[in-house]
Amino acid sequence: MATYTLNNDMLVTPRSEYKVTRRYHGKVKAVVFDWAGTVIDCGVFSPAGAFMELFSEEGVEVTSQEARGPMGIHKREHICKILEEERVLKKWLEVKGSNPTPTDIDRMYAKFVPKNLTALKKYSKLINGTVECVRDLRAQGIKIGSCTGYPSVIVDQLKPLAAHQGYTPDVYVCADEVPQARPLPYMVWLNGIRLDVSPIEAIVKVDDTTDGIREGLTAGCWTVGVAKTGNYVAATEEELSAMPHDELKRKLKRAYAILEDAGSHYVVDSVRDVPKVVTDINRRLAAGERP
Amino acid sequence: MATYTLNNDMLVTPRSEYKVTRRYHGKVKAVVFDWAGTVIDCGVFSPAGAFMELFSEEGVEVTSQEARGPMGIHKREHICKILEEERVLKKWLEVKGSNPTPTDIDRMYAKFVPKNLTALKKYSKLINGTVECVRDLRAQGIKIGSCTGYPSVIVDQLKPLAAHQGYTPDVYVCADEVPQARPLPYMVWLNGIRLDVSPIEAIVKVDDTTDGIREGLTAGCWTVGVAKTGNYVAATEEELSAMPHDELKRKLKRAYAILEDAGSHYVVDSVRDVPKVVTDINRRLAAGERP
Amino acid sequence: MATYTLNNDMLVTPRSEYKVTRRYHGKVKAVVFDWAGTVIDCGVFSPAGAFMELFSEEGVEVTSQEARGPMGIHKREHICKILEEERVLKKWLEVKGSNPTPTDIDRMYAKFVPKNLTALKKYSKLINGTVECVRDLRAQGIKIGSCTGYPSVIVDQLKPLAAHQGYTPDVYVCADEVPQARPLPYMVWLNGIRLDVSPIEAIVKVDDTTDGIREGLTAGCWTVGVAKTGNYVAATEEELSAMPHDELKRKLKRAYAILEDAGSHYVVDSVRDVPKVVTDINRRLAAGERP
Amino acid sequence: MATYTLNNDMLVTPRSEYKVTRRYHGKVKAVVFDWAGTVIDCGVFSPAGAFMELFSEEGVEVTSQEARGPMGIHKREHICKILEEERVLKKWLEVKGSNPTPTDIDRMYAKFVPKNLTALKKYSKLINGTVECVRDLRAQGIKIGSCTGYPSVIVDQLKPLAAHQGYTPDVYVCADEVPQARPLPYMVWLNGIRLDVSPIEAIVKVDDTTDGIREGLTAGCWTVGVAKTGNYVAATEEELSAMPHDELKRKLKRAYAILEDAGSHYVVDSVRDVPKVVTDINRRLAAGERP
Amino acid sequence: MATYTLNNDMLVTPRSEYKVTRRYHGKVKAVVFDWAGTVIDCGVFSPAGAFMELFSEEGVEVTSQEARGPMGIHKREHICKILEEERVLKKWLEVKGSNPTPTDIDRMYAKFVPKNLTALKKYSKLINGTVECVRDLRAQGIKIGSCTGYPSVIVDQLKPLAAHQGYTPDVYVCADEVPQARPLPYMVWLNGIRLDVSPIEAIVKVDDTTDGIREGLTAGCWTVGVAKTGNYVAATEEELSAMPHDELKRKLKRAYAILEDAGSHYVVDSVRDVPKVVTDINRRLAAGERP
Amino acid sequence: MATYTLNNDMLVTPRSEYKVTRRYHGKVKAVVFDWAGTVIDCGVFSPAGAFMELFSEEGVEVTSQEARGPMGIHKREHICKILEEERVLKKWLEVKGSNPTPTDIDRMYAKFVPKNLTALKKYSKLINGTVECVRDLRAQGIKIGSCTGYPSVIVDQLKPLAAHQGYTPDVYVCADEVPQARPLPYMVWLNGIRLDVSPIEAIVKVDDTTDGIREGLTAGCWTVGVAKTGNYVAATEEELSAMPHDELKRKLKRAYAILEDAGSHYVVDSVRDVPKVVTDINRRLAAGERP
Repeated sequence: MATYTLNNDMLVTPRSEYKVTRRYHGKVKAVVFDWAGTVIDCGVFSPAGAFMELFSEEGVEVTSQEARGPMGIHKREHICKILEEERVLKKWLEVKGSNPTPTDIDRMYAKFVPKNLTALKKYSKLINGTVECVRDLRAQGIKIGSCTGYPSVIVDQLKPLAAHQGYTPDVYVCADEVPQARPLPYMVWLNGIRLDVSPIEAIVKVDDTTDGIREGLTAGCWTVGVAKTGNYVAATEEELSAMPHDELKRKLKRAYAILEDAGSHYVVDSVRDVPKVVTDINRRLAAGERP
Repeated sequence: MATYTLNNDMLVTPRSEYKVTRRYHGKVKAVVFDWAGTVIDCGVFSPAGAFMELFSEEGVEVTSQEARGPMGIHKREHICKILEEERVLKKWLEVKGSNPTPTDIDRMYAKFVPKNLTALKKYSKLINGTVECVRDLRAQGIKIGSCTGYPSVIVDQLKPLAAHQGYTPDVYVCADEVPQARPLPYMVWLNGIRLDVSPIEAIVKVDDTTDGIREGLTAGCWTVGVAKTGNYVAATEEELSAMPHDELKRKLKRAYAILEDAGSHYVVDSVRDVPKVVTDINRRLAAGERP
Repeated sequence: MATYTLNNDMLVTPRSEYKVTRRYHGKVKAVVFDWAGTVIDCGVFSPAGAFMELFSEEGVEVTSQEARGPMGIHKREHICKILEEERVLKKWLEVKGSNPTPTDIDRMYAKFVPKNLTALKKYSKLINGTVECVRDLRAQGIKIGSCTGYPSVIVDQLKPLAAHQGYTPDVYVCADEVPQARPLPYMVWLNGIRLDVSPIEAIVKVDDTTDGIREGLTAGCWTVGVAKTGNYVAATEEELSAMPHDELKRKLKRAYAILEDAGSHYVVDSVRDVPKVVTDINRRLAAGERP
Repeated sequence: MATYTLNNDMLVTPRSEYKVTRRYHGKVKAVVFDWAGTVIDCGVFSPAGAFMELFSEEGVEVTSQEARGPMGIHKREHICKILEEERVLKKWLEVKGSNPTPTDIDRMYAKFVPKNLTALKKYSKLINGTVECVRDLRAQGIKIGSCTGYPSVIVDQLKPLAAHQGYTPDVYVCADEVPQARPLPYMVWLNGIRLDVSPIEAIVKVDDTTDGIREGLTAGCWTVGVAKTGNYVAATEEELSAMPHDELKRKLKRAYAILEDAGSHYVVDSVRDVPKVVTDINRRLAAGERP
Repeated sequence: MATYTLNNDMLVTPRSEYKVTRRYHGKVKAVVFDWAGTVIDCGVFSPAGAFMELFSEEGVEVTSQEARGPMGIHKREHICKILEEERVLKKWLEVKGSNPTPTDIDRMYAKFVPKNLTALKKYSKLINGTVECVRDLRAQGIKIGSCTGYPSVIVDQLKPLAAHQGYTPDVYVCADEVPQARPLPYMVWLNGIRLDVSPIEAIVKVDDTTDGIREGLTAGCWTVGVAKTGNYVAATEEELSAMPHDELKRKLKRAYAILEDAGSHYVVDSVRDVPKVVTDINRRLAAGERP
Repeated sequence: MATYTLNNDMLVTPRSEYKVTRRYHGKVKAVVFDWAGTVIDCGVFSPAGAFMELFSEEGVEVTSQEARGPMGIHKREHICKILEEERVLKKWLEVKGSNPTPTDIDRMYAKFVPKNLTALKKYSKLINGTVECVRDLRAQGIKIGSCTGYPSVIVDQLKPLAAHQGYTPDVYVCADEVPQARPLPYMVWLNGIRLDVSPIEAIVKVDDTTDGIREGLTAGCWTVGVAKTGNYVAATEEELSAMPHDELKRKLKRAYAILEDAGSHYVVDSVRDVPKVVTDINRRLAAGERP
């Protein structure tokens, strides 16, 4: 058989003198929302409380800040991250006499899920403005996606609780459906596939944690941090209303800084501000900007 | 219950004066290859022949160029696109007396798959350089993905034929696994998820058709068109070797122009040139460029 | 003692895949004004006249244009620059028989200062619009800096004259407080330090000479040239009012061109236009632009 | 007197149709080094130890990490920042019964300075590579600046200790010479003035802390983080040599991430790597890039 | 004679440290319009019909789409391009027995011109909106240029027909006045010279074909495609009015896509939309953008 | 007749979501050289001398610098510009009693041409390196254009003088062939047309005067200033060889600064350096840069 050989001179000949670039100038087509701290459970109390209770039962008390540190990632991974904290690890060693093992993690994760499910009922109020925000976006033809650090077993409980209050996204993606959850982009891409929406520049991710923002950034889409209702202010809507102005300002400032430093394209108070952000992204897309 | 109100003045207060941008400066982590015309079946004869035979049996002869026009997309959709061609549609109306119906399409697609499977055996030679290219990429720690306009039933036959010649990608994605195949980006994103690779800038898509290039562009990744072994030159490796220099040059020039006009970041002769392209993409990523 | 060795392999390992950029998106925080030709002494007559008189007394007449050429820089340096002009140097040689020496320069500079102080009294009218401009900027929380080619001994006389007419900047910097004055950026940086204002992108320099514009450019801040009241139109407010339209237009055109060619971000008629410019700079900063 | 009126029609007339931009394409002219953790006292032990001892004497023990958190800023401000930490503040309240007052801060700062001076003698070894780095830079005509969070009283002790080992920068700037020290840019600008170096793009700041990096960023210059010898790895050169590979790798990874997230243009192991970075900055300046 | 030698050391010495860029920030000064399909002969029937008749007389029938394919280029070149189409060439060989020769082309072009002149009379209606568009542009001081694939002999007939309906551009350039016509830029540059208009960024080219758009792009100016009245919708104004909405939408979509893929800066329905586009280009020029 | 109406809703519908950009990535195809000071008559003595003699005969002596100021533009326009100089105009008024009239200009221009023709013979030596430069460029397939401020009558004399020494550009364009010569771009565009070369990014203009550089910038092409052999150093090759090093350095520095401030993309010593510049432009074009 005649051997086929790459003719390298030819390689050069046909190359045209022009390079063509295609850039998206259309509009936002989908917004993907995180769950706790973004559309439900203002202040993210249900997982935070479950983690604190879980560690307490192990004889290793953790503070609220320690429990909330890694918020956003898969809950099993979250347990590992708390255990990696120097103070917690030192305490664990004192109490248990040896480093935590995979068996410890499995046992704790098995206990965590029912605790979280219980807490869910208590902290299942939809965040003010969610229904209006989604109605507004859908009126522009925008599809609504969702993803979360929760596994399917928890999301299955969450769905009817949210639906009952008027929030039903078009698509659900859970942390156990992908090889790795946040900060990796897989749940965003799976939203794109299930929503049948492209290109990546037409998608916006909304989240209250740094790992949720990085999930969007590595996917290649726009990102919006929500500061006031999320994990870094860590207060219920009632607590926010009652909070002294100075304390609220200080906590908001810290939450804004954390989300901005993570690379958020926008940081806003709450989901209520998302339609204004979408309008601005549409303007930037029309001008040829990319996320 | 106290109503929670967005304090708009406060919205302004905490906003920091700096915006933070995170940009990927790492390396290529995965290359996703198309099948026919890219790594196997030089000139893309197995589907082209099957389409011609299919239409011939309907009494509507189509030329090779008409059969190849929409190459890259899902094969069922491909049949529809051929039928939309004005000359073909006019001929169909003459022969059949009415426009094609969904039942016609279903019947034809059912006949197409076995025809393609038969043709596959004849046109299953791996394209020269594929094994060396993949070996080279893997030596750099790069993962190998794949996707195609073929449905799973055809890919299942293709796998052992390719494996036997030394080509085994790490992941397979087929046109029937996503809501819409090319030019939409879903098969690329599914490759990313299954390969566990991110961010999107770390992925390269290699294809011989415009819809395969647009699949990569809408996904947000780098794209490389292969001109000489693909659908637009439409020649086997033997034919390429025997082709007069002027004819080859003219056909290559046309194929390069088609792939460049689709927005390919690079166009090369064949898969053999992909490692050099990856080196250049690594240089551009290190300099802060994006696809 | 064990030698500490750079482990070069390790150098590579920890490098993250992302680069982070922080960019200022806040507002203008300070405007630094030049003195003569910008906020006082429309047409810059006090130093121009003093230089002409000084050279005349040496027996070397210089024209107004020759006297004004290097305007903006330290006054001692200004004398040197006039002497470097070919026509002037040739004349000096004729009159004096040898090149000017450092002793000549010292003597002339010593005579210059009292001449300028005398002229100051005559040409100390604040330029129309200065008070309103400063009031407007301060209402936005913007601080007011100042710098000049004058030494401290002259600025000390200038301060009460300006204050009496309603102009009191927050900070004064003089040419003899830095190792080199304009076009070097040191007086702008010293303004930043004394005003306690940063980052550099939040500072605007306003000046009527090319060396004053370059001072701002090398500092890294925004620059605004004032054309009508400055050194290149070289007319008092009364002269401007009386000037035939064609002559004014021609002189303005030349002054605009000189200041634009120096790289000014903006050129305007007078200090009165500065608040509008600040509004535009705020818009550009918010959009992520830099000076 | 005739009133001088802005003729707005005229404003438009003379404006030329071109805008002119001047950009620096020259080379690096000065490098400004931080002191502890960058060129001396590998691991930054002298202030860290002094802070721990200081708080211990107040009856409020702080951990090494708490003592090191705000490293880089003015030492008096540093004491305040430690006291703002929630755990420390809570402990202080338990021990003292009330919040810390300015009098407390004054007393503690007065005690801190002699403690630091004592520690200085113990931790005054120049970091390996400093002398070679400076010799290399000076051979290219680059000037050497310095600044620090230390007040003059401490720097005065530091100078002979460093000079004795071969390190004598051209200029010294101390935290008490400017209205606010890091992260504000004033000490960098004062270096520029005293070194007589401009434009801002020709200056490079080298530091081991995030506030030292931000000092450079707000000044408008290039920034280089040093990870291995600094505050975030917190180990002496002997400890670095003896450290198990995995622990060193983990600590380096964390230090690199902290300095990269602060927006450093470059992060390297130590001062020894600075000449290579300067070469790369020269290349980027020549290509028209800015910091 | 003393030899003059390049002193390379000296080469380096005088190079300044700054690079200066001058960018046009002025307004659009000229718009250059194509003729058929842009300002006259909606649907481009006069040349299309002439080509079909010409080939029919040769015994080689061509379809409307084949006749229109290369529209925009010089009419002699247009005949060659039709003959290069595979189907046409095959038919020609069947009918004539050999490939077309230069003599064939000459004969056909000689016959084409009078055919086109005859058709011109039938299809000489000015496109709706042309007069208003030109009046609007001239009111802004914008000059009107013109160019075409027609030779002078045809343009000479066209001039009075257009003038009679109120359209008289300031300048005429014909395809036979330049070494090569479209897609090369020579007719645009000749418009610039004859109109006495510069810089290139101040010129806008309006055309209904891809080669007319590329003519503008290679010239370096702004380009506007007109979709509805041009060669790709291929309908008279009466036919457009009567066309079913779906058919019009489908044809418009195709025409927009063809013109956008050619790289048009803007695509609009007709010449009527050009003043709005000029307003937007003025905004972009003022912001420092280039074509 | 049915009225054809723009359906504005439809305007929006078909617009695609992507914008396509085509950018030249090819190579330099033509270099256009100025004549005097660039390839012939080092120091530009023939016109400078002719102007001085011309004014002397009118009784108004001008210095060499005054005679050379406007060098590059059309020679008739050059006479006007010298007369606009304040000192010259004042002197003219003294001597003649009234402002210069068009009749004066005509008379002087009529006398200028023969003077320049005479001077031409004396100053017709080709500049060292011209022949080698052109040979080198042609070996890369680059075409050679030329243009000048001279009218045709002078260029006709110049052609054989240059050809005799080995310099024969492919194309000649003279100042009287265009509506306005430099700094307008028309002679460059006419070179493009006659050379049959495009796009504009593939053309390089080489000149020794600011108006010649602006001619290239407004055309949209690359520009290269030649400093040492041109109008601003104003010395013959023999004078350059004999010139003391300091004087040459000072004059070169001034010439470089003048040409850089005009916006030259490159400034070099002489035509000999042009091939190196073309190599660098090719690199930048390949990387997607534009002039």
